[in-house]
Amino acid sequence: MPKSLLFDRLLAIGVGLIGGSICLASKKQGLAGHVLGYSRRLETSHEALRLGLVDECVAGADDANLRNVDAVVLSIPVQQYQRVLTQFLPVLPPNCLIFDAGSTKSDVLEVLEALEPQFPGLSSRFVLAHPIAGGETHGPAAATATLFQDRSCVLCPLPQTNPAYLGKVERLWSALGARIRHMNAVDHDEMFGAVSHLPHLLAFAYVASVLNHPKGELFMKEGGAGYRDFTRIAASSPEMWADIFQNNSKALLATLGEFERTVGRVRQAIEQSDRKALEQVLVQAANYRSAWKPQ
Amino acid sequence: MPKSLLFDRLLAIGVGLIGGSICLASKKQGLAGHVLGYSRRLETSHEALRLGLVDECVAGADDANLRNVDAVVLSIPVQQYQRVLTQFLPVLPPNCLIFDAGSTKSDVLEVLEALEPQFPGLSSRFVLAHPIAGGETHGPAAATATLFQDRSCVLCPLPQTNPAYLGKVERLWSALGARIRHMNAVDHDEMFGAVSHLPHLLAFAYVASVLNHPKGELFMKEGGAGYRDFTRIAASSPEMWADIFQNNSKALLATLGEFERTVGRVRQAIEQSDRKALEQVLVQAANYRSAWKPQ
Repeated sequence: MPKSLLFDRLLAIGVGLIGGSICLASKKQGLAGHVLGYSRRLETSHEALRLGLVDECVAGADDANLRNVDAVVLSIPVQQYQRVLTQFLPVLPPNCLIFDAGSTKSDVLEVLEALEPQFPGLSSRFVLAHPIAGGETHGPAAATATLFQDRSCVLCPLPQTNPAYLGKVERLWSALGARIRHMNAVDHDEMFGAVSHLPHLLAFAYVASVLNHPKGELFMKEGGAGYRDFTRIAASSPEMWADIFQNNSKALLATLGEFERTVGRVRQAIEQSDRKALEQVLVQAANYRSAWKPQ
Repeated sequence: MPKSLLFDRLLAIGVGLIGGSICLASKKQGLAGHVLGYSRRLETSHEALRLGLVDECVAGADDANLRNVDAVVLSIPVQQYQRVLTQFLPVLPPNCLIFDAGSTKSDVLEVLEALEPQFPGLSSRFVLAHPIAGGETHGPAAATATLFQDRSCVLCPLPQTNPAYLGKVERLWSALGARIRHMNAVDHDEMFGAVSHLPHLLAFAYVASVLNHPKGELFMKEGGAGYRDFTRIAASSPEMWADIFQNNSKALLATLGEFERTVGRVRQAIEQSDRKALEQVLVQAANYRSAWKPQ
């Protein structure tokens, strides 16, 4: 067996852009011996099979093939975790490794805590992961073996996380070309709430608010490069982002509150022609952003 | 004299990126016979002369060379219009054409109304113009003859605007390669308030608000492509944008109010887990922005 083999039988629950890319890349890298794919929609798992993302389809939790799976990757909306895990865990081996690819983490912790009594030790073999990849496209057809190349993958190990399992998930993501970052779930959600979820919320809200103006569409037709870049993320999937906003509501609403307070200061400075207070905000932002460089 | 000559002696008040580019392009196109340049800072006009943007420098309103100027272009902050016009108009020929390049227009109308009693007919020979160009760079050294090529130039003619003067300004901007749009001053300020000034205000406020978080800088270091594009305009000149926000405060605060109401709806939808209300805003924005194309 190849030196790099990490899992004999990997089950992918969710075989869209993220799950399908993990499967494809794992097969190409020889990290997984045999890859099983499950999707709530049968056509989706069959498409993944046709595209060669997985070796075999699993129809449901009753499938006998699940008994000797040694690793599971969850690439489905976080709100489905509890239902799906409750379905599959009784059939899966009690020691099998599980990791996910969800965009939020505190809510996953809550699911693990809720399931722990029914499935003791679950949170020690569940590795919380968030690969920073994907975007406009979705579905198995969008999956590629290089999706995670040079992207970040945040891992949120728990005190009780099995170090051997954590090591395997780290080796997987490294082999897929990702830069691994460790972070606790709260910092993770605060960080992505601030630098990803809030900009999306504001871009969606901005475009929607201009559309409320009787001449809004006419106005936006004239939008230049600034408008174009500022609103690009407002074209993202509403379903996916509605999920993320709800899953990360606590951290998102906190950072939104700070934003609203800052906008209030800017509004007041303009209303009161307080040039000093106005420039204070603008200079603080411009100084930081001019020096900012992407990682 | 070349067929395309529009002005024998053009005076540029303000010779930075915009004013300097108008001078340079007018000289190259043979639109102006002789170009005089004035700047509040003598070094700036001398730099414009050294760079060949202008043929001659004017030290101040007392300069005898002003007596036979037949056109003036104002490329200075709008708040300086009233002071500068009050200085120069007594010396300039009473029939000389004046046009500007300011980013806001209703406030220019107020200046014209205020000066009309002292300088009768001023608003008939003053053509309000706004070339949509420029951005990060500034100063005479940033001026180019092609700055306005394929960019829009909005003109806001008044009922009393002298049609011959309007025609000359239109021919100038067409010769500089700009697409000319006519609009009234109120629509102009509402439009740019909505599609340019508000995005800048929100981008500045967003970056400043994240910086208020103890870990804000750490968080933004992790910003991806979405963060990068959403915040690009937050690196713009604070001085210039503080001017614009104050000059266009009425229209800007109105569109900001609509934005704040929309954000309030999104916040409430998240707080109340009202999925339908949340998706309504996101879908409206995503549908519009996915179909949007730059002009």
